Amino acid sequence: MRLEGLSINLATVREQWDMPQAVEACLKLGITAIAPWRDQVAKIGLAEATRIVRDNKLRVTGLCRGGMFPAADAARRTAAIEDNMRAVDEAAELGADCLVLVVGGLPEGSRDIAAARGMVADSIATILPHARASGVPLAIEPLHPMYAADRACINTLRQALDLAEVLGNGIGVAVDVYHVWWDPEVHSQIARAGKTKRILAHHICDWLVPTRDMLLDRGMMGDGVIDLLTIRRSIESAGFDGPQEVEIFSAQKWWRRPGEEVLRTCVDRFRTVC
Amino acid sequence: MRLEGLSINLATVREQWDMPQAVEACLKLGITAIAPWRDQVAKIGLAEATRIVRDNKLRVTGLCRGGMFPAADAARRTAAIEDNMRAVDEAAELGADCLVLVVGGLPEGSRDIAAARGMVADSIATILPHARASGVPLAIEPLHPMYAADRACINTLRQALDLAEVLGNGIGVAVDVYHVWWDPEVHSQIARAGKTKRILAHHICDWLVPTRDMLLDRGMMGDGVIDLLTIRRSIESAGFDGPQEVEIFSAQKWWRRPGEEVLRTCVDRFRTVC
Repeated sequence: MRLEGLSINLATVREQWDMPQAVEACLKLGITAIAPWRDQVAKIGLAEATRIVRDNKLRVTGLCRGGMFPAADAARRTAAIEDNMRAVDEAAELGADCLVLVVGGLPEGSRDIAAARGMVADSIATILPHARASGVPLAIEPLHPMYAADRACINTLRQALDLAEVLGNGIGVAVDVYHVWWDPEVHSQIARAGKTKRILAHHICDWLVPTRDMLLDRGMMGDGVIDLLTIRRSIESAGFDGPQEVEIFSAQKWWRRPGEEVLRTCVDRFRTVC
Repeated sequence: MRLEGLSINLATVREQWDMPQAVEACLKLGITAIAPWRDQVAKIGLAEATRIVRDNKLRVTGLCRGGMFPAADAARRTAAIEDNMRAVDEAAELGADCLVLVVGGLPEGSRDIAAARGMVADSIATILPHARASGVPLAIEPLHPMYAADRACINTLRQALDLAEVLGNGIGVAVDVYHVWWDPEVHSQIARAGKTKRILAHHICDWLVPTRDMLLDRGMMGDGVIDLLTIRRSIESAGFDGPQEVEIFSAQKWWRRPGEEVLRTCVDRFRTVC
């Protein structure tokens, strides 16, 4: 029995399982879409990861992640681009729907966020031809503004789409409710993204009140304040029909529970509140 | 010797001093502008607080704070409005440049941020005539999006200015670098605010990397990643010539240092990095 419309980002169970274990547990629940991280792929090797995907006819809703472009010197910027070229190759081999880009924040010692944003644009422009040739759409994931300094200086859908439209074909956005739910323009920008088919992924989790850790305290769908259904409707109305991908970083709660319980809870919540 | 251009928001030294002590320490350093919080005023009484302001010819760059409008029922919404009416009266008595509004987040149990924003607009419209009649400009302070759920559902300058322009005269924005530094539109929206004279306050501190607490880990100017000088230039170019007001909530660092050291550091940093 296949469970349509749900994908599990394997970060959600990264403390419990490696990729083969996570895939096996997903399949038992009928989940046939996943999004692995590069370190999870590397641990077993790209060939084995690809075999697992193909043998089980898995949909890979994204490979996490490329990006981290801004750097304090040319050597590091070049290294980041080379690493992203490899990430494109890995995403192509896995047949991923997209390569998710967490674009990076300020370089060490910098206060110039405009310059960092310029480096991001230049770097993506550099890897985009290879991504197009490889058939790998690049998904800029605007991260919540609280990550602007250290993880991603692209912080709104408007900003991500402005950049994507300048860059042309082969590039869009990953819409993660955690990062964009607060944005007064979230619905209008989702609609805008739909018009040029730039929605490449739909990530879900929830925003907890209070949030006790800026990185590792994401909530299970339904446990927080995000209006998941309304955002889902906007995304579907904009023409995206891919699975909702659960991505939860939760050091104190979900990473400490048995993986089966986490997955069963994802399925329950997917059916009731998403 | 007066130190022009610097105001101290008394939250910066709230753990060390009450309002009279803080004012005395400010005056010793030539600081003649302050922004008290309502609880600090209430502790000594509005009449005494007003006497201190007048006797020392202090500029009050703002009274913190009104707002917290969205509520789960009509009785609480009414109570919030009545409390804001009193806040207007207090700001008028103190001769404050503005009443700062931290507008409030989602009501208990709600996931409807659009409704909360509607309540904010309606509530401000309700208190605005009294504020105008009292000569107290209302300053909407857009808070960082990480506070959207629990403190303020107005999260960008664009959003605050859209609302202010609908509401008309007597209302503007408080620009706090901590909340807006990440915004790709920060400079364009500051320029927009200047055109209709809606910049009512300029708050400074810094964004630390890493930030260890979402509420109480603000940095001293120069210790973080905010490009304070560039934002200051934008604000000055937009026509605002009031003092920069230092507002630092720092449970682990600055609230534990002697108040004199905190103020001296504020003065030093004001002279060197702001």
